[in-house]
Amino acid sequence: MILVLKPQTPAEEIEKLSKRIESKGLSTNISRGAETTVVGIIGDKTVLDIDQLKANPVVEKVIPVTESYKLANRKFHPKDSGFSVGNSWIGPGSFTIMAGPCAIESHDQLFTIAESVKKAGATLLRGGAYKPRTSPYSFQGLEEEGLIIMKEAGAAFDIPTICEVTSRHALEAAVKYVDMLQIGARNMQNFELLKEVGKCGLPVMLKRGLAATIDEWLNAAEYICANGNEKVCLCERGIRTYETATRNTLDISAVLVLKEKTHLPVIVDPSHATGVRSFIKPLTKAAAAIDADGVMIEVHNNPEAALSDGPQSLTLPQFEECVQEVGPYLELVNRKI
Amino acid sequence: MILVLKPQTPAEEIEKLSKRIESKGLSTNISRGAETTVVGIIGDKTVLDIDQLKANPVVEKVIPVTESYKLANRKFHPKDSGFSVGNSWIGPGSFTIMAGPCAIESHDQLFTIAESVKKAGATLLRGGAYKPRTSPYSFQGLEEEGLIIMKEAGAAFDIPTICEVTSRHALEAAVKYVDMLQIGARNMQNFELLKEVGKCGLPVMLKRGLAATIDEWLNAAEYICANGNEKVCLCERGIRTYETATRNTLDISAVLVLKEKTHLPVIVDPSHATGVRSFIKPLTKAAAAIDADGVMIEVHNNPEAALSDGPQSLTLPQFEECVQEVGPYLELVNRKI
Amino acid sequence: MILVLKPQTPAEEIEKLSKRIESKGLSTNISRGAETTVVGIIGDKTVLDIDQLKANPVVEKVIPVTESYKLANRKFHPKDSGFSVGNSWIGPGSFTIMAGPCAIESHDQLFTIAESVKKAGATLLRGGAYKPRTSPYSFQGLEEEGLIIMKEAGAAFDIPTICEVTSRHALEAAVKYVDMLQIGARNMQNFELLKEVGKCGLPVMLKRGLAATIDEWLNAAEYICANGNEKVCLCERGIRTYETATRNTLDISAVLVLKEKTHLPVIVDPSHATGVRSFIKPLTKAAAAIDADGVMIEVHNNPEAALSDGPQSLTLPQFEECVQEVGPYLELVNRKI
Amino acid sequence: MILVLKPQTPAEEIEKLSKRIESKGLSTNISRGAETTVVGIIGDKTVLDIDQLKANPVVEKVIPVTESYKLANRKFHPKDSGFSVGNSWIGPGSFTIMAGPCAIESHDQLFTIAESVKKAGATLLRGGAYKPRTSPYSFQGLEEEGLIIMKEAGAAFDIPTICEVTSRHALEAAVKYVDMLQIGARNMQNFELLKEVGKCGLPVMLKRGLAATIDEWLNAAEYICANGNEKVCLCERGIRTYETATRNTLDISAVLVLKEKTHLPVIVDPSHATGVRSFIKPLTKAAAAIDADGVMIEVHNNPEAALSDGPQSLTLPQFEECVQEVGPYLELVNRKI
Repeated sequence: MILVLKPQTPAEEIEKLSKRIESKGLSTNISRGAETTVVGIIGDKTVLDIDQLKANPVVEKVIPVTESYKLANRKFHPKDSGFSVGNSWIGPGSFTIMAGPCAIESHDQLFTIAESVKKAGATLLRGGAYKPRTSPYSFQGLEEEGLIIMKEAGAAFDIPTICEVTSRHALEAAVKYVDMLQIGARNMQNFELLKEVGKCGLPVMLKRGLAATIDEWLNAAEYICANGNEKVCLCERGIRTYETATRNTLDISAVLVLKEKTHLPVIVDPSHATGVRSFIKPLTKAAAAIDADGVMIEVHNNPEAALSDGPQSLTLPQFEECVQEVGPYLELVNRKI
Repeated sequence: MILVLKPQTPAEEIEKLSKRIESKGLSTNISRGAETTVVGIIGDKTVLDIDQLKANPVVEKVIPVTESYKLANRKFHPKDSGFSVGNSWIGPGSFTIMAGPCAIESHDQLFTIAESVKKAGATLLRGGAYKPRTSPYSFQGLEEEGLIIMKEAGAAFDIPTICEVTSRHALEAAVKYVDMLQIGARNMQNFELLKEVGKCGLPVMLKRGLAATIDEWLNAAEYICANGNEKVCLCERGIRTYETATRNTLDISAVLVLKEKTHLPVIVDPSHATGVRSFIKPLTKAAAAIDADGVMIEVHNNPEAALSDGPQSLTLPQFEECVQEVGPYLELVNRKI
Repeated sequence: MILVLKPQTPAEEIEKLSKRIESKGLSTNISRGAETTVVGIIGDKTVLDIDQLKANPVVEKVIPVTESYKLANRKFHPKDSGFSVGNSWIGPGSFTIMAGPCAIESHDQLFTIAESVKKAGATLLRGGAYKPRTSPYSFQGLEEEGLIIMKEAGAAFDIPTICEVTSRHALEAAVKYVDMLQIGARNMQNFELLKEVGKCGLPVMLKRGLAATIDEWLNAAEYICANGNEKVCLCERGIRTYETATRNTLDISAVLVLKEKTHLPVIVDPSHATGVRSFIKPLTKAAAAIDADGVMIEVHNNPEAALSDGPQSLTLPQFEECVQEVGPYLELVNRKI
Repeated sequence: MILVLKPQTPAEEIEKLSKRIESKGLSTNISRGAETTVVGIIGDKTVLDIDQLKANPVVEKVIPVTESYKLANRKFHPKDSGFSVGNSWIGPGSFTIMAGPCAIESHDQLFTIAESVKKAGATLLRGGAYKPRTSPYSFQGLEEEGLIIMKEAGAAFDIPTICEVTSRHALEAAVKYVDMLQIGARNMQNFELLKEVGKCGLPVMLKRGLAATIDEWLNAAEYICANGNEKVCLCERGIRTYETATRNTLDISAVLVLKEKTHLPVIVDPSHATGVRSFIKPLTKAAAAIDADGVMIEVHNNPEAALSDGPQSLTLPQFEECVQEVGPYLELVNRKI
């Protein structure tokens, strides 16, 4: 950690500060410039609170040099990690395709979609049973009834399943029925939920918060890992910016940043990132081209009648075409669906 | 609601669409331009799903004309609303000052601060018992032990109390000890928690999400109202933008927008909005000048030793000075602390 | 154009407004809902000023339905356009690779780079002679001397050249020496410069402004087209967001939005978008995968000694590798370098 | 300046780097941690190029400690500065009120407005003769004809005048007619124009760019100062964020940040910041409350017929009321109009 002190900080104040730091078992390195003095702190910084340092009146700014996440940090786990979900592998060598409707609406709807996406090449079946909706008057999901349908569809078509959980209550239900959990953007910093998910043992996909920095996102992943669960993958689903031509702005470079900072697999969600059906296929190819570990795609048998997110859902034939066309790109990066 | 159709949509498609809408008991008004056809929809739009309309291949865009929130909407409640919390009134004529530490650290700490802020003029005592922290390795709050201290401090100094809740578990504890609940920025769209809070009956302050639009924020308030609790106030606490000179960007105009769109009281939090101690006093005056219903200010007896958010906390004498100096501004807007 | 009127607007006010609009030769279509009245305006809206309509006290909002740009609009030019620059073609079927140093530093530097990039496959040589730098104390470019070196390098290695112009003065010099002009992000809405560039006749690449919407960007392109020059391509170079892990946030979906809205070619600049050398190659592949018309890449023979933008420049061998590896992706989209 | 090196940088690389830095007459201070080595650089950093350091493969990040602007920096000019414009003083003790139409439309229009705003208390007359408009088909201003009317109006009502310049050509005309120049948001980083404006000698108001950081803004001001003109004030006019309820987001805290970082006066423009007429008066009071040096307000005798920015313009009686109501706030901060 580096402290930049205020101009003209008197020598005795600098000494007082450095003594206080050293009293915690850390060492300091003081660099006096013409205008500014800089204090480097060496040792295990978890014994120091960054907020307390910032509150010190002689400190102008505190610059953290090392990240606060450890288990998710590539520095301590240089090799790419991965994990199995049912008969599917998420991570090195694989290009995971999670596909399914935004919301589970009925047994028929999910079975129709599940059969089709499995046949087309999807490796996980997605579908929402607990829907976080902006308005309290919108459809909120079938809840446990939806989870039951999910389990049946997964079994019927031999495809592992993933569902979003939005509360401890939903989590307690979901672990009974599905193979993998999703934490959505709105709950990325619902730390109580992250802790619970960490304890439950199921693999988890953690979506990026609407305006989360990559650093906050990795710290959120750390909440899950630190509670005992390292089967975590991250999902870039677009961030909120001033541009409104797309629903969100897909931060494709974030995948590359993550690949440097963490060993966890990274999935791209072009459906939520753009909200535009015709952009899904080209962005799936782009995700393959930058060596992402997979995509999550919304698919619906009848988007016009979908109870949620219809405009961004692919139809079943469009999904099939998308999977076929991404094939040659996957050969170029040595990944298999 | 207005539908803008794609250029060259054939007449029979327009008719099909308008029949489908009319079959739901709504009426339509079709306006054909040289390039574009526009369909106005008249009637109770809750029977229509906006996503389904967007998914229709002849629809270019859907423009909602009326808001989806009702109970929080000024259109249906033209007069400013307000409510009591213990011996304090939040709303018209009043300028609420919520003050206290970011985190409750000990009996002594909270009692020292509570006594001082009450004497200086604070009308509610704030303090966190459940702290949502970016890193899992940071101090997470005293939890129920903190709530007990809070209750004692409120009683000892005759000041109502407000605490943040971050989960149903925290909520179940908090209702036993505190007078008012706070939903923090990270949980603004934790809809399950909002529903619970709506049912619990205690007054609630709902902070704006890090990158929430005003419309999303009012819909989040609607979740609380729609579950039976209209004692809700909103708290502008800065939004995330590209500018890093302050922790967040205080969207002061949001207070004015809210005053047009909702009857609910609006509080400003200059502490979290800027993260800079010296900005709190001038922004408190600015909040008074634009006729906000109050402020929330972090105060600490020893900011350098605070376990959370020290750099932005006022010292006890600074808080006293702030309250004194805002007085003349409140006279100009006819509000009393 | 659609006007949403304020609730309870009296009938006589609506009539007054609609008469005023009709007096300009337009027709109106009035749709009265329970809460809101909506007025559709049909005809040539250039005779109406949107600001005047907004200023009308009975108007709540004005919703433009058609775009204000015409020459750049795909609606009126459904086919992709393209143009030649020297021996190179920008547009359909081609994948343009503009490469070279951020700033022209010397004859030797540019000749070394030009020879290498041409050999590796670059189709245009880029290099800045007039550098817009944040601080007045940073290197500002070699100006006309740089342009002369550019012309010589282009001739020596038979490669067309592109340079940024930042003022009318720079423009007057540049037209004498280079084959194509670039308008940088900071000048995207320097409308006086756009008009001059429109009149000069040379092909132009218009970079997206730091926080420009796609709509503003296309209107800026329209300034050039409307002044007589339709040899314009657009360059996505990242937008400013809250995320600081990369220099800017590459808005890759913007390429897809542009392909729907305009017929002009679209180039991607991964160097400025990310500021990270190791991200250039994967993002070049992603640009190919989404069918962009090319990339602009910063290349330097000795990035550590570069006077500007060293950290994001590829070395000569890295550039060669990048061009080679993008080849198979170009085959998949049927484009040739 | 501080360099954070990559983990595991070998000792000989560190020595090589530090020798290179020392060869430029600077000294270094090396702090080796368990994971990371940090190099502090002491001395006159203008001899070092930050980009070159970043491009060095052993450097992970470069953290500038001191600002690159000098003349605008409060560190070197601790006292607030100010300057006269005709019979008006901008700076300490004064609350400048610049008022007038967005665009000068005619002699009659400007004279009507000028007479009224002067009588109501405005201290400068504003009005645009060269209008930067998003679409090339919108009204672009009366140009020199407008400037002539401006000069006449200023003389007739004894009020100094301010006009925006958008090019060297406009600047050459403006210096003949007006008392103060404005650089608009779109030209904040039109460095060629800033240099010209620096040389012309007239006082200048520099508006913040649409998405400019405070640091970039102060560097833009430095361009003017470094070219010989220190009669510069800054104008906060709202920044672009994801929130669309107001035209821009007024960054009121930026005024406080500027007051710490620079000695230059700071003006607030609530008209462009919000685009909403009814927000102008409360935000003018807020600007007074935080001790800004003044406001710029758009005023029009007939907003519905204005050729530009009608919706955000105050009517003449509204402006008069605004000036009267801000009076008591100015007494509280010891400023006079």
